[in-house]
Amino acid sequence: MNYPNGQRKTLPVRKTPSEKESKSFSNRGMTLEDDINITNQFYLDTNKAVIHKKPTPVQIVNVNYPKRSAAVITEAYFKQASTTDYNGLYRGKYIDFEAKETKNKTLFPLANIHDHQISHMESIIGHGGVSFLIIRFAAYDETYFMETEKLFSFWNDKLKGGKKSISYEQVKQNSFLIPFQYQTRVDYLSIIDKLYF
Amino acid sequence: MNYPNGQRKTLPVRKTPSEKESKSFSNRGMTLEDDINITNQFYLDTNKAVIHKKPTPVQIVNVNYPKRSAAVITEAYFKQASTTDYNGLYRGKYIDFEAKETKNKTLFPLANIHDHQISHMESIIGHGGVSFLIIRFAAYDETYFMETEKLFSFWNDKLKGGKKSISYEQVKQNSFLIPFQYQTRVDYLSIIDKLYF
Repeated sequence: MNYPNGQRKTLPVRKTPSEKESKSFSNRGMTLEDDINITNQFYLDTNKAVIHKKPTPVQIVNVNYPKRSAAVITEAYFKQASTTDYNGLYRGKYIDFEAKETKNKTLFPLANIHDHQISHMESIIGHGGVSFLIIRFAAYDETYFMETEKLFSFWNDKLKGGKKSISYEQVKQNSFLIPFQYQTRVDYLSIIDKLYF
Repeated sequence: MNYPNGQRKTLPVRKTPSEKESKSFSNRGMTLEDDINITNQFYLDTNKAVIHKKPTPVQIVNVNYPKRSAAVITEAYFKQASTTDYNGLYRGKYIDFEAKETKNKTLFPLANIHDHQISHMESIIGHGGVSFLIIRFAAYDETYFMETEKLFSFWNDKLKGGKKSISYEQVKQNSFLIPFQYQTRVDYLSIIDKLYF
């Protein structure tokens, strides 16, 4: 499972000009969230699927209502999400996933995922939904589709006192690389097509 | 379709003490949102379904990060929701609905629903999901389950220059009364069981 240290770091360095050019449609500079939002909008516009990001959960404490203008929230706090960030509907199936980006070059820290998100994912599977995790390694500009069952095995290892992270190599071995295209920048439905249909 | 005026108003007035008592588990004083949240929590706790209210969409403009304490959002605005308020998963089906309460005793104003919510509901049906509207008439303490297809016919009438509302009597004729129980205060899944399973 452990990949030799030196090899991994050679991946993204020193591109020739032509290589750079061929990367011009890539997601460098865009966040994973931006890319998924663009993808979801394209799925929606082409009537392929109905999948949305849930709004950021906020605890609103104070709101001002100035005359003749919109209400202004003047005090609010971020709340921890109790579920995952994205859900929706594709080919009759309930789709539910979380998406996380890491700048780390060698591992994905499991601290990115919360206990209640894991419980939520278990419920989704139990009720017949499609649950997965999207992981992007920003340094390599690579985005992976990890089935929740695979995530669980790493999570359970952690609970038993094992590693608190999934190595880059383990992600590669236990996930599907999500293809990048101009309008479907994170084309995760192509993976779902292969896995479920 | 038009219900005689006098009759309708006799429904909720002047209860005897015993009648009041028998209403003690009713939803008077609770908002529809509270009741649905309690219901969804019960569905979740009993592992019956995974259905959540989406967070209120907020456009965050300014955030303060005081030392040693949580980030404070100091300027934000309410955004109009682009979808419906509730979605989730039940018996393998994608569930999606909007819930609206009216104090009006004679009609449900269609202004409670937005164009893009109608488009969203159309997409949900097109992709094989379960879409509906929950309407509560607060004055009668009655909560109805209206299938989206029924809502569409009233909506299309409105678009053709027809009525901008659905009368209380029309709601009664075109919907299912949702049973009220102590823990499942808006037991909409009981209607879905009858309609889909």
